[in-house]
Amino acid sequence: MSTVEELQKKVRDLEAKLAAVQGNVAPVRQKIDVMSAEVVDSNPYSRLMALKRMGIVDNYEKIRELSVAVVGVGGVGSVTAEMLTRCGIGKLILFDYDKVELANMNRLFFQPHQAGLSKVDAAAATLQAINPDVTIDAHNYNITTVDNFQKFCDTISTGSLTGGPVNLVLSCVDNFEARMAINTACNELSQNWFESGVSENAVSGHIQFIVPGETACFACAPPLVVASNIDEKTLKRDGVCAASLPTTMGIVAGFLVQNALKYLLGFGTVTHYLGYSALTDFFPTMCLKPNPQCSDSQCVTRQKEVRARPPPVELAAEVCEDVGPLHADNSWGICLIDENAPEEEDSSNLRLVDGVQVAYSVALDSSTESSTGGAVAASELSLEDLMAQMKSM
Amino acid sequence: MSTVEELQKKVRDLEAKLAAVQGNVAPVRQKIDVMSAEVVDSNPYSRLMALKRMGIVDNYEKIRELSVAVVGVGGVGSVTAEMLTRCGIGKLILFDYDKVELANMNRLFFQPHQAGLSKVDAAAATLQAINPDVTIDAHNYNITTVDNFQKFCDTISTGSLTGGPVNLVLSCVDNFEARMAINTACNELSQNWFESGVSENAVSGHIQFIVPGETACFACAPPLVVASNIDEKTLKRDGVCAASLPTTMGIVAGFLVQNALKYLLGFGTVTHYLGYSALTDFFPTMCLKPNPQCSDSQCVTRQKEVRARPPPVELAAEVCEDVGPLHADNSWGICLIDENAPEEEDSSNLRLVDGVQVAYSVALDSSTESSTGGAVAASELSLEDLMAQMKSM
Repeated sequence: MSTVEELQKKVRDLEAKLAAVQGNVAPVRQKIDVMSAEVVDSNPYSRLMALKRMGIVDNYEKIRELSVAVVGVGGVGSVTAEMLTRCGIGKLILFDYDKVELANMNRLFFQPHQAGLSKVDAAAATLQAINPDVTIDAHNYNITTVDNFQKFCDTISTGSLTGGPVNLVLSCVDNFEARMAINTACNELSQNWFESGVSENAVSGHIQFIVPGETACFACAPPLVVASNIDEKTLKRDGVCAASLPTTMGIVAGFLVQNALKYLLGFGTVTHYLGYSALTDFFPTMCLKPNPQCSDSQCVTRQKEVRARPPPVELAAEVCEDVGPLHADNSWGICLIDENAPEEEDSSNLRLVDGVQVAYSVALDSSTESSTGGAVAASELSLEDLMAQMKSM
Repeated sequence: MSTVEELQKKVRDLEAKLAAVQGNVAPVRQKIDVMSAEVVDSNPYSRLMALKRMGIVDNYEKIRELSVAVVGVGGVGSVTAEMLTRCGIGKLILFDYDKVELANMNRLFFQPHQAGLSKVDAAAATLQAINPDVTIDAHNYNITTVDNFQKFCDTISTGSLTGGPVNLVLSCVDNFEARMAINTACNELSQNWFESGVSENAVSGHIQFIVPGETACFACAPPLVVASNIDEKTLKRDGVCAASLPTTMGIVAGFLVQNALKYLLGFGTVTHYLGYSALTDFFPTMCLKPNPQCSDSQCVTRQKEVRARPPPVELAAEVCEDVGPLHADNSWGICLIDENAPEEEDSSNLRLVDGVQVAYSVALDSSTESSTGGAVAASELSLEDLMAQMKSM
């Protein structure tokens, strides 16, 4: 363990080095008090504020009051954090406990000179240089241990710019355990969140919006929800690693932040579940209702609260507008889970929890059973039909 | 105890800041002679070479022999170049004549300290630091002037690593004139290319694969093909600019590079035309045949060459495999061009060139006429039906 004196000396040395290096580099931009729509080359917000003039967003400036937690700052999470930073989000809270490695260089964001640094610290420094207006809070720990889980819950429930709960949690983790921890925390705190994932063969991914009590949580129907629950660390021990591509990860991060922006700034329609299959450019969507027998008792409690709510007035109406299937008659399809991964479980092994309700509509087209997917459209289909169809893939 | 922790945190922060500032200065990773699949933290290619073990790509190493030209290094082009660099492309040829401005900071890639630098030079420096194995060739000129157009043609016809034509041209420009210049060059040189675009309201985009003589070129049916032909420079003079989002641009770049990789490395199915409508997460696909009366005489010449080819043997078979509608019965839909842009031309003004053939199949579902889109599926529809449907949107 380093002594206080040694550390103080190291801080002084680093501060001096930083000052020397910064002297040779162009000064980064200053903080900006108020977002302006002025069209000048020096305004980093002109293209975003133009969303108002274009009739897309009513009040773009609202983004400065919002706080988002990004859990996992890897291939998807780092790009997610960068997009939110460039959009001028008020506060960003980052969680990760991994270090940057050269093996991560096949994805966007981190650069070779950051190898060896903690991901959250390296990310925070880059993001702060990109946009000094964003408040960035970096947490370098594993949220799945008992102590850290409580710290995580406390942080997301008091982490907003005004000391309240964050506006949204984005899950960008790469393993089942961390997803379950986020799910448990969000069910307990009634915190809306997005789950995301990329398959271990790198050619499919998904995002899913979870509103505790209103939509299926991660424990309600894991096999339908998890596109990949591979833990790279476990695999690495055998000299084997998951494949990944900057394209798939960038696209999934783009879908995640785009739907987060739609939810936070109130434009467009938030998609419940959006899948991406790169081999065929197939984009399944669906909506899963919560499982009344969910193993997470807090999910069941949230479901009771939702049922006890008076029907569509104020709050309920707002939630429906954000997450409801506005065009349910033609926009949902079945989710094909990673049909190209040779090592994945056969889909006939789907451990579908009793009582799960699948809210979707899908066309039984002659070609739908092709394992390469394709667009699916509107009609009714029972859960049994869906299972049979999945087994035949 | 907390003092030591605080100091350790400060040291980490300073190290990260120093690393971020040193970005273009600090020594980066060394060149690597041969791509290895070895699973170690120091191998930047392990996750890409894993695509072979996963059965996705037969010969990933081939990427090191390939050359790609990226025309336009803005919101889409810079991310496109970064993705290809991280994938280990052999050679990247960049074209742009613009400078980095703070007004570009709402998109990925460029950072505030690069403001004032030429986009190609700033990009080349960052990309070379990310991956020194890639040969990067930066061209800082406007390809639309007479002299530069010839230089552009010469560069793409002799720019490969072995002095031959590049393997692919990716258009990431933001105006009609530049797209037409690329189209003219590629028709003349029989050069396959991808066109890309993002709408001026920032919430839709598209990519399109163009094989001269086989698919519609940019001059065959411009209104169906151009999602946006806004020239930001013209607009800026009036104190007005196009809106843009890092999400939409990142997603379009992801689609572009993903389909480029599928084409170059021979996996999956290359999509002819893939659209993205962010408000509803709608992804139209279609395939346009070339116009026999195309105004570009070189396009007409290429069409004659294609018709004169003996039917599906060797080369022809290969091309069909890459670009053909393998699942034409359910994977094409109509393209809704930017239905949410308030200032765009009414779709009833579509100047569809005589003789254009639209190759698609689409379901006439009760909800298909909704302006918000939705998945469309298999059935036959005449061009007249399509036009009527578009007018009703």
